[in-house]
Amino acid sequence: MRMNFPNKLSEELYLTNETGRYLYHTYAEHLPIIDYHCHLNPKEIAEDHEFEDLGEMWLSGDHYKWRCMRTFGIDERLITGDASYYEKYMAFAGILPRLIGNPIYIWCALELKRYFGIDEPLSAENADRIYNETRAMIREKHMTRRWCMEHSNVRLVSTTEDPIDDLRYHKEIQKSDCKTRVITAFRPDKAMFIEKPGFAAYIGALSEAAGCTIASFQDLLSALEKRLQYFKSVTGTTVSDDGVPYFAWAEYTDDQIEAIFKKGLSGEHLTEQEEDQYRSAFLFNMARLYNRNDYVMQLHIGTYLDANTTRVARIGQSTGFDCCDDASSVMSVGKLLDALTAIEELPRTILYPLDGTKIETWAILAAGFCDSGTRGKVQLGAPWWFNDTAFGIRRQFDACAPLYPVSLSVGMLTDSRSFISYPRHELYRRVLCNYLGELIERGEYFSSEENLKEIIYDLCIRNTNTFFGFGVTDVGPVA
Amino acid sequence: MRMNFPNKLSEELYLTNETGRYLYHTYAEHLPIIDYHCHLNPKEIAEDHEFEDLGEMWLSGDHYKWRCMRTFGIDERLITGDASYYEKYMAFAGILPRLIGNPIYIWCALELKRYFGIDEPLSAENADRIYNETRAMIREKHMTRRWCMEHSNVRLVSTTEDPIDDLRYHKEIQKSDCKTRVITAFRPDKAMFIEKPGFAAYIGALSEAAGCTIASFQDLLSALEKRLQYFKSVTGTTVSDDGVPYFAWAEYTDDQIEAIFKKGLSGEHLTEQEEDQYRSAFLFNMARLYNRNDYVMQLHIGTYLDANTTRVARIGQSTGFDCCDDASSVMSVGKLLDALTAIEELPRTILYPLDGTKIETWAILAAGFCDSGTRGKVQLGAPWWFNDTAFGIRRQFDACAPLYPVSLSVGMLTDSRSFISYPRHELYRRVLCNYLGELIERGEYFSSEENLKEIIYDLCIRNTNTFFGFGVTDVGPVA
Amino acid sequence: MRMNFPNKLSEELYLTNETGRYLYHTYAEHLPIIDYHCHLNPKEIAEDHEFEDLGEMWLSGDHYKWRCMRTFGIDERLITGDASYYEKYMAFAGILPRLIGNPIYIWCALELKRYFGIDEPLSAENADRIYNETRAMIREKHMTRRWCMEHSNVRLVSTTEDPIDDLRYHKEIQKSDCKTRVITAFRPDKAMFIEKPGFAAYIGALSEAAGCTIASFQDLLSALEKRLQYFKSVTGTTVSDDGVPYFAWAEYTDDQIEAIFKKGLSGEHLTEQEEDQYRSAFLFNMARLYNRNDYVMQLHIGTYLDANTTRVARIGQSTGFDCCDDASSVMSVGKLLDALTAIEELPRTILYPLDGTKIETWAILAAGFCDSGTRGKVQLGAPWWFNDTAFGIRRQFDACAPLYPVSLSVGMLTDSRSFISYPRHELYRRVLCNYLGELIERGEYFSSEENLKEIIYDLCIRNTNTFFGFGVTDVGPVA
Repeated sequence: MRMNFPNKLSEELYLTNETGRYLYHTYAEHLPIIDYHCHLNPKEIAEDHEFEDLGEMWLSGDHYKWRCMRTFGIDERLITGDASYYEKYMAFAGILPRLIGNPIYIWCALELKRYFGIDEPLSAENADRIYNETRAMIREKHMTRRWCMEHSNVRLVSTTEDPIDDLRYHKEIQKSDCKTRVITAFRPDKAMFIEKPGFAAYIGALSEAAGCTIASFQDLLSALEKRLQYFKSVTGTTVSDDGVPYFAWAEYTDDQIEAIFKKGLSGEHLTEQEEDQYRSAFLFNMARLYNRNDYVMQLHIGTYLDANTTRVARIGQSTGFDCCDDASSVMSVGKLLDALTAIEELPRTILYPLDGTKIETWAILAAGFCDSGTRGKVQLGAPWWFNDTAFGIRRQFDACAPLYPVSLSVGMLTDSRSFISYPRHELYRRVLCNYLGELIERGEYFSSEENLKEIIYDLCIRNTNTFFGFGVTDVGPVA
Repeated sequence: MRMNFPNKLSEELYLTNETGRYLYHTYAEHLPIIDYHCHLNPKEIAEDHEFEDLGEMWLSGDHYKWRCMRTFGIDERLITGDASYYEKYMAFAGILPRLIGNPIYIWCALELKRYFGIDEPLSAENADRIYNETRAMIREKHMTRRWCMEHSNVRLVSTTEDPIDDLRYHKEIQKSDCKTRVITAFRPDKAMFIEKPGFAAYIGALSEAAGCTIASFQDLLSALEKRLQYFKSVTGTTVSDDGVPYFAWAEYTDDQIEAIFKKGLSGEHLTEQEEDQYRSAFLFNMARLYNRNDYVMQLHIGTYLDANTTRVARIGQSTGFDCCDDASSVMSVGKLLDALTAIEELPRTILYPLDGTKIETWAILAAGFCDSGTRGKVQLGAPWWFNDTAFGIRRQFDACAPLYPVSLSVGMLTDSRSFISYPRHELYRRVLCNYLGELIERGEYFSSEENLKEIIYDLCIRNTNTFFGFGVTDVGPVA
Repeated sequence: MRMNFPNKLSEELYLTNETGRYLYHTYAEHLPIIDYHCHLNPKEIAEDHEFEDLGEMWLSGDHYKWRCMRTFGIDERLITGDASYYEKYMAFAGILPRLIGNPIYIWCALELKRYFGIDEPLSAENADRIYNETRAMIREKHMTRRWCMEHSNVRLVSTTEDPIDDLRYHKEIQKSDCKTRVITAFRPDKAMFIEKPGFAAYIGALSEAAGCTIASFQDLLSALEKRLQYFKSVTGTTVSDDGVPYFAWAEYTDDQIEAIFKKGLSGEHLTEQEEDQYRSAFLFNMARLYNRNDYVMQLHIGTYLDANTTRVARIGQSTGFDCCDDASSVMSVGKLLDALTAIEELPRTILYPLDGTKIETWAILAAGFCDSGTRGKVQLGAPWWFNDTAFGIRRQFDACAPLYPVSLSVGMLTDSRSFISYPRHELYRRVLCNYLGELIERGEYFSSEENLKEIIYDLCIRNTNTFFGFGVTDVGPVA
C-alpha cells in the first residue's frame, strides 16, 4: 500500500468544509489589513532598507524562532550569536520539517508563498537553493520594509513606544512616501514597574521628555498625559499598550500612593502590598487618562517575563525566555473595571489574558462591563503571543463566542517584530471562515449570506477601524 | 461561484454523523422532561396568565439576553428600562443575525420553532411580522405559563426558594389542575452570607418563619432544619440549592462558630478567616441536615456575583452583571467532602463549578468520594449558566466522561427564568447523541444498541428521577 | 428505520482519516515498546507466576477500575474486599457496557483482543463464558508476567523504587532469562515529606541502606547520592521519579535548611514557610545530584493524594481516593528551573503536571529553559494518570505542539501496575497518527513521507531511547 502525500502548500489550508472555503475565497481572502498592534521598529520603516536575505527576514529579531531552535538544542551562536544570517537560516531550515503542528511551520510556508511564490516544503535538502532564489528575488523586486507592508495590503500599523520616545522616526515616516499609515501605541509600563532598579532614572527621563518636574504621583500622571497627548498629536493614535505581568487589586488612599511613589523614587524596598497598591492606582489613573483622551485601553495580563534570568542576563530581554504566569485573578481586573465604572470613566477596553486556558473567565468578565452607547465596550483581545496559533484562534471562537458575541471582536493583530508576518491575518481569516462554515453546516446559523458577509468584513477589518476610530477609508476587498 | 445557504432551522441541528442522528430521532427526541433546577416564579405558575407577546416571553426576565444586548451598546431603556415589550423585542431582533456562535441565537430559533412553528431566521426585516404572528398564536392557543410546560412534556420542575418562603404559591399550584408537578429547591444562601449588611434582619425573618428564636448557630441550624422539613412536607422536594461564590475550607471549633455568629448578628466586622470558618461550618452542617433528611446537596461554586457594582445598584441583582470567579480551589471543597465522609454523613452531592475551564479537576474530585450503595453518589452537575452551550455540554462529555462514567449523570436542567427554555433539554440531547454517535463511529464503543438506548434514557430523564427519588412514573417516550 | 451498529472491536479504532490510517498501519503499528515509567512489582517479574484468571489480571491492583466501580455504588467487598477474583470480575463486567466514553472500556477491549484474541463486547451476558475462555488460554499459553511483556514487544520497563530498596528482585531478574530489560526509577519522595509522621524513621532506614549516618541535610544528600549511584550500578537506570503534590518555591539559606531538617527529624511542628523552604531545597539539590549522575529528572506535579482520608485509612493508599490539586503555580517550578540554570546544573527534565486543564502553561515554561546541546532538554511529559485518555493525549497534541515542538517528545508510558496495560501505547500511537493525518489533510504539513516516518519512530520509541540514554538497539518495526 502506498499513499500520495501533498508536497506543496495548499490554497485550501485549514478549510475543511465547503461553506468555509466559499466564505474565505469569496469574502475574506481579498480584504486589506489593519495591524493595530505590533512591535515593528519605526527606524526600520523610516530607513526602509532592502532586506539582506531570508535569514535576516526570519531570524534577525524573531524570538519565537529562537526559542524553538533552542528546544532542538541548537548552539546559541546559530540562534542569536555571531553566525551569519546564512548560517542561522541553514540551521533553522534543518529543523523545519520537524515542526509539525507548530505555527512556525505554517507561518514560514505562507511567507515563502506570499512573498516569494515558493510553495515547496523547505528542508535541509533545498535550503541552500531557496536561500539563493529568495535572495535574488529580494534584490530583483527591491524588497524593503515598506514593500512588505504594501505587498500585503496593510493600511495601518501601530508600533508601540515608550512615553519618553520623541517619535522622530514616526515623523520621518510621515514625511516620506510610505503608503501604509504608521501610528504608535502608548506603552507606559516602565512607569508602573516601581519595584525595578531603573525606576528613578526612568522617571527622570520622563520628566525631561514631558518638560515638567515629577515630584509626586500626581506629577507623574500629568507628565504621562502630556506625552499621551503628544503621541496623539503626532500620529493620531488612540491605542494604549499596557503590560501587566501580575495584577492583584489592592485598595489604597491617595496619600498612601504618594508615599509609595516617594519610596520607589528613592529606591526603598516596597512591600508586596505596596506594589499591588501602586499598580492598582497606576492602572486606574491611566485608564482615566485614556478615557478622557479617547484612547482604547489594551491590558496584556499574565506574562511571566524573564523567567530564565541567567539566559536573559546573557542574551537579553525578549529573546525567547519569557513564559506565562497563571496567578492573576479575574476578580482583580474586575475590581479595576468596577472602580472605573463607578466614576463613569471606564474607557473602551480590550483584555488580553496570556493564559489561554482561562480565556472564558475573561470573556465573561468583559461582558459584565459593557454599556450603552459603545459596541463591544469591554472585549476580549485577539489570541495573543503563545495563543497566536490555529488552535488558539479556534479555541477562542469555540469557547468565547457563546459567552460574548464574536461578531463584535476587533479581530486579529500580529504582535510581531517581523515585516513579513502578515500571513497571520490570513491564517486567522481561514480559521474564522472554517469555523463559520462548520456552524452553518451543523445548522447553528441560517441567517442570510449577506449577514455572513457583514460579519466577515467586521471581524477582518471594519470593527478594528471603527472601535479605534482610525478612519481608514479603503477597507473593502482588494482587486 | 455561488452557494446555497440554509435559510431555515434544520431538524438535524448539531447532528453531524449518521449514528448520532439515528440515536437522537429513535431514542432521545420524544422523551419527556424533568427540570430539576430552574428559577421560574411560582406565583406566575399559580396565576397562569397568558403571555402578552414574544417580547414578554423573551425579555421580561432573561439576563442572558440583557447582557448580550449591552455588548452591542444598546440603550438600557430598551433592555431593562421603561420601553414596551414590543420595542425591546425589536431592539433584540435587530442584533439576532449577529449572534452567530452564541447560544441565544439557537435558543431563539428552537423556541420559535417548537412553540410557534416558525423556522425562518428572525431579523430586523421580518421582526414586526413575526411579532404579530406570534402574538396572534399566543391569543389563539391561550399560551399561558402552564401551557408552555405541558406543551414541552415537562413532568416536574423544581423552582428554588428561600427558607423563609411560606410556599403559598406552591400550595395554590397543588390545588390547581396544573399537569406539571412543581416542587422547590431549598436555598439557604442568605443564612451563609454572614458578612452582608442584611444578615441580622434575615435571621429575624427566618426566626419568625420557623417559629423559634435564633440566638446561636445551633438555633440557626434547628430553624433551617424545620424549614427544610416544611419544604419537603409541602412539595415533597429532595433538592437543595447552595450557592458558594468563593469557598476556602477553614478548620474551626464550635465555640469559634458561635462567637462568629454573634459578631455577625451584631454587625461586627469579621476577618477573612472568620468568614471562611463560618462558611465551612455552615456548609458542613447543612450537608448533615441534607443527609439526614434525604436531600441531594447541590453546590454551585465559583460565581463572581454583582461584579459591576454600580450597574447592579442601578438596575438590580441578577440582571446580567455577574461574572465567574477563578479562585475557589478543588481542595477546599475536597476537605468539606472529606470531613463529611469521616462522620459518614456525606449526602448525595452534585458539584456545579462555574469555571468551565477547570471542570476536569472537579470530576476527579467527585469520583474520589463515591461510595458503596449509591450510583454516582458525588457527581459533576450539568454544564451550568455560562457553560450552558453546545460547547460547554460537549466539553463536559469529552473531558469528563474519561474521568467519571458519564452514564451516571443526572443530565440537563434549564436553570432558567423563562417558561419556553425547554429546548435547552433538546439541545443537550442532540449534543449527547452526536457525541455518542462519534464515539461509536470512531470504534470507541461497540456494545449493543440496547445498551445505548438505556444510556440515553438514563441521561435524558431516568437518572434524574432515580437519584432525586422523584418517583415520576411516565418517563418513557411521548407519542 | 434500523441501523447496523458495530459489534466488535475495530482495527481502525480512533483512525478517522485515511492518512492517519495509512501512517498507523505502515509505521507505528509494529514498533516495539519502551515503557520508561510504570509501577510494576519487580517481585512479580522475578517470580514470574502464571496469572490465575482475568480477574487477577484486571482487578488485583488497578485503582482506576476500583475507583470506577465505586462510582456505580458497588459494594467495596467486590472491589478491594475478600470476594474472589471471579466475583470481582463479574461485578466489573456488569458495568462495562455503561463505560461509554471512558478509557477503561477501550483498555479492556484492547486487552481482550491483544492478549486473548477476543473482540466481542464484554457484558454481564457473556462474562462467565469469557472468564472461562480466558482462564483456559492463560493455562494453555502459560501466561506469566514476563509472557505479557514479551508478547507486547516490550524492550525495557522501568519500575520505581524507594532509595532504601535493596533491589534484590531486580538482581534476580537480571540473573533470569527475562527477555525484557528491567530497570528502576529512583523515587526519593519520602525524604521530601518532612512534615509526615514517619519522617525520622524513614531517615533511619535510609541511613542504614546507605551505610552512613544522617545527622544533617548534607548527610541526607550524601546518602541519597550513594543510593542513586547504587541504583545506577545495579540496573543502569537514568530515571528519577519525583512526586510533588504541591510546590511553592521559597528562598532559603543553608543554615535554615539544616535547622528545619533537625526540627523535622525530632518531629517538631514546621510552619508552611519552612515546609516550602525544605521542599525547595530538597528538589534543588536532588536536581543537582541527577545532573551530575546523568539522570533525567521527572517531576510529577499537582497530585491531591489521599483526598478521602477516611477511606484511605480503611482501604489503603493508592486505592482510588487520590484527586488532582489545582494550586501549584507555574512560576514556582520556574524558579526552581531558574535557580538550577543559574549554576548551570539543570538536568534533563520532564514536567508532568497532573492538572490537564493547564498543560499549556507548563509547555511554555519548559520551552523557556531549553538550551544548547540537548534536544528537548526540559519538556512536557506524557499525558499522565487522569490525562491518560484519548482526550488527554489528543489535547496535548492540539494544545502543546504549537508551543513546543511535539516531535521532540519522549512519548508515552503506562504508569501502570498492570502487566497487560501495553495497549495504552497502541492507543497513543493511534491517536498520534490520527492527529498527524488530520494536520496533513488540513494542509498544515506537506514535508515528505520520510519525515513523517522519522517523526513517528521518534515519538513512539526512539526519542525515549536517546533522551534517557537507554541504548536499546532493536527499536525498529517488529515483523
